Amino acid sequence: MSSAGAEGKGLLLKADPIAAAFRDEVKASLAECKRPPRLVGILATSAAPSRNYAEFTKKQCAELGVDFVLKTTGAAVSSDLGEGEGVEEAIIEANEDESVDGIMVYYPIFGAQQDHYLQQIVSPFKDVEGLHVKFHYNLYHNIRFIQPSSLLSSVPPPLPPTTAPESDQPPPGTVKSIIPCTPLAIVKCLEFVRVYNTILPYGDRAYGKIVTVINRSEVVGRPLAALLANDGARVFSVDIDSIQEYTKRPRVEGTEESEAVPRYHPRHVVRPSNLTLQECLALSDVVVSAVPSATYKVKTEWLKDGCVCLNVAADKNFEKDVRDKASLYIPAVGKVTILMLLRNLLRLQQYKQGSAESSQ
Amino acid sequence: MSSAGAEGKGLLLKADPIAAAFRDEVKASLAECKRPPRLVGILATSAAPSRNYAEFTKKQCAELGVDFVLKTTGAAVSSDLGEGEGVEEAIIEANEDESVDGIMVYYPIFGAQQDHYLQQIVSPFKDVEGLHVKFHYNLYHNIRFIQPSSLLSSVPPPLPPTTAPESDQPPPGTVKSIIPCTPLAIVKCLEFVRVYNTILPYGDRAYGKIVTVINRSEVVGRPLAALLANDGARVFSVDIDSIQEYTKRPRVEGTEESEAVPRYHPRHVVRPSNLTLQECLALSDVVVSAVPSATYKVKTEWLKDGCVCLNVAADKNFEKDVRDKASLYIPAVGKVTILMLLRNLLRLQQYKQGSAESSQ
Repeated sequence: MSSAGAEGKGLLLKADPIAAAFRDEVKASLAECKRPPRLVGILATSAAPSRNYAEFTKKQCAELGVDFVLKTTGAAVSSDLGEGEGVEEAIIEANEDESVDGIMVYYPIFGAQQDHYLQQIVSPFKDVEGLHVKFHYNLYHNIRFIQPSSLLSSVPPPLPPTTAPESDQPPPGTVKSIIPCTPLAIVKCLEFVRVYNTILPYGDRAYGKIVTVINRSEVVGRPLAALLANDGARVFSVDIDSIQEYTKRPRVEGTEESEAVPRYHPRHVVRPSNLTLQECLALSDVVVSAVPSATYKVKTEWLKDGCVCLNVAADKNFEKDVRDKASLYIPAVGKVTILMLLRNLLRLQQYKQGSAESSQ
Repeated sequence: MSSAGAEGKGLLLKADPIAAAFRDEVKASLAECKRPPRLVGILATSAAPSRNYAEFTKKQCAELGVDFVLKTTGAAVSSDLGEGEGVEEAIIEANEDESVDGIMVYYPIFGAQQDHYLQQIVSPFKDVEGLHVKFHYNLYHNIRFIQPSSLLSSVPPPLPPTTAPESDQPPPGTVKSIIPCTPLAIVKCLEFVRVYNTILPYGDRAYGKIVTVINRSEVVGRPLAALLANDGARVFSVDIDSIQEYTKRPRVEGTEESEAVPRYHPRHVVRPSNLTLQECLALSDVVVSAVPSATYKVKTEWLKDGCVCLNVAADKNFEKDVRDKASLYIPAVGKVTILMLLRNLLRLQQYKQGSAESSQ
């Protein structure tokens, strides 16, 4: 598997076949809509990757029958205007416009902190990217099903009883919580390549897998680590100054009882890790890298033979010879991400119905 | 004023006399409380500055009669536990505990992004630090008076009509919005040293003043720049990769009409600036620096003669000879910050009453 010959190399897997199944699903759901949902994209910078992504969104929406409206502001309109100028006003306008079903904003704009502020200004009922703290809170607490009305309150709701969900079907009166697009797309890729084992029970399908996630941002790395841990994986979360281990299992503290039935904590546990990145990679079945740097590279020689590697950064975080070690290499997930975003758009329409019903 | 002789040097102004007036005010308000308000401090790291600040809070609260409870978790309890371990649970517990009136968390813990998440988990009704996005939204939109019930919703409220507030007294049925402690403490220091001119009308008392703020974090620099601009100052907001100008005035676009009566936009305007830091400093009556670095220094030679300098960082951001140029130098504002926090604690008690009344 790890020979250097071309035919011995691991498989290069582009996102298209993974996206295809979701494209059909989204298309079928759209066909049932009374009117095409309206998605507003807000472009506020002159950055070429953002403009390209906006064009890509537009094209995808046109193909699938989503009513996409691109709003430009600030430096996206004219070089006389500032980067990000007018973006908050554009968000507020789209929040208040009842004809708008979903809002996406092309980040980065101001940098992580100020962008995080903007992400909280988007109404959670229109947040197709799933970046509102309400959705992060649900994700970090492994709350998979919600009543849409719970999104109305600024105060976090009381935590649900400590039982793990037994199925991916929401109980009556609830809907699935929105999951941030990029981490969700990565999970869908890992399901596609069988890192998730569908023979195992729901909520435990990544059990036995060791995953290294390089990046711990609130947009990608931390939610991804939590998702994978809540599905049973052992996850090393790596950032510039620390390595943490995310797991589902509670630690057995000071007891010598061996427990025949594994008991799962409903929420992932985070512990500092003493391992180095090299040691993490040597153990890892899956390596996900999302480092926004053109020079950062995961060393192929550190990878475990036969691992699955997934690049999420705009730059290539893996070396050219990554497939000498990796059995599968997915170089980009953007095409899956956009479909997750459209799925979220459709789900948010359910939310509005649910919320309207509960306020009647 | 700028001679090098010791007697010609500018004044070194410690925060104690500035804090004194607020200490009396807080004491008087506390004397009127039926029971002392309870403030929970959450310490989750082993960092010495955080531990010291927690001790300082405890001492100040004891002196003034606030019921302070320090909760420790994670690395603050034992080196076997992770930095920040258990902090979110401690916040949720304090949110749900009806005997708790205010919550403060000793940051930094995980870094700006994850800390920002935690800041949104604190109930806005207990957020003495004013770090919840509800309060930032009000500040950035120059919404000074609110109905407490507006804090309940996760969706930003519609913007009020475009009139500037005429007085610092909230209209009936409203209360003052909470302002983040550190920016508020800085404004109070600038009021004390007469950078704010009380002869000018409310909402315009910093008119004519040019201020450079070095730092654009969501915790200090950006809210401070917005506050000062909304009070009439021209503000240069400086961070690592850009300089912006915050002003109150709308730009007059393409008209040649001269307007006898100045028209103020209710919300500050942000524009990219073409000036360098050196050029900004040469113009600035006030320089506020909050750079978290032991090596960063504002060059004394770049300062304008007679300016006011304020250091907000834990390290000294100004050179030793700063008073060769500055007429006033305030080396730290922590003692004022803690009183702003206690004032916010008292204000939040009004909120709870207001909210209880409106839900009756």
